[in-house]
Amino acid sequence: MKPTHIEHIGIAVKSLDETIPYYEKLLGTACYAIEEVKDQKVKTAFFKIGDTKIELLESTDPEGPVGKFIEKKGEGIHHIAFAVKGIEGALEEAKENGIRLIDETPRKGAEGMTIAFLHPKSSYGVLTELCENKG
Amino acid sequence: MKPTHIEHIGIAVKSLDETIPYYEKLLGTACYAIEEVKDQKVKTAFFKIGDTKIELLESTDPEGPVGKFIEKKGEGIHHIAFAVKGIEGALEEAKENGIRLIDETPRKGAEGMTIAFLHPKSSYGVLTELCENKG
Repeated sequence: MKPTHIEHIGIAVKSLDETIPYYEKLLGTACYAIEEVKDQKVKTAFFKIGDTKIELLESTDPEGPVGKFIEKKGEGIHHIAFAVKGIEGALEEAKENGIRLIDETPRKGAEGMTIAFLHPKSSYGVLTELCENKG
Repeated sequence: MKPTHIEHIGIAVKSLDETIPYYEKLLGTACYAIEEVKDQKVKTAFFKIGDTKIELLESTDPEGPVGKFIEKKGEGIHHIAFAVKGIEGALEEAKENGIRLIDETPRKGAEGMTIAFLHPKSSYGVLTELCENKG
């Protein structure tokens, strides 16, 4: 596997309304998109920085993955997403290397990306996403 | 403030020996530097990906910041570092915006960078580093 770059860093926040102005100041750039991802029970807000992005994640359901994360660990960095070419092959390779998968087959994420998560249990505590822009 | 890119993502790990081979497979690239930062009580390992880096952090002292982080939260993503031009001015601006600083004045970090941390209390749970390569 050879990801080309970090596609985004996901950050779990309690409120987009509070954190968007903070990140606009910190990054000196406006939030360029807000999108609800119903499947993941989150509302997302995106900022571009260099060749990567910051993705703020506000839970829309306390039982969703980000709601549970915040309850357990508080607000903070939630995951890293690596951009790959050929996500199916990358998942296959991860599996062959003994990496546990959350998603055996890719699914749709924010911004029309094709995504899959690796399990933090076999990634030394880091929730890791692979994603591909199939355009 | 307008950081140019994410300089690195810091990840707290229990053992570099165990996690370096994992990241070499995941990123398809070799660890290019190992460095001890005595000041921070860590041994670091670096990987390049796109215009950013992954910095693995192994604690050399249970009482150090990474040792305490792992004891409290387990292994996982520890901080995000943004590359800025003019770190002193960026810190001044952060302060004017009500952001609490860990480092009032910049100090030396890994790879000869000039660095300063913002406090996660005013950064919505995200330990945030500013850094500048002053050459």
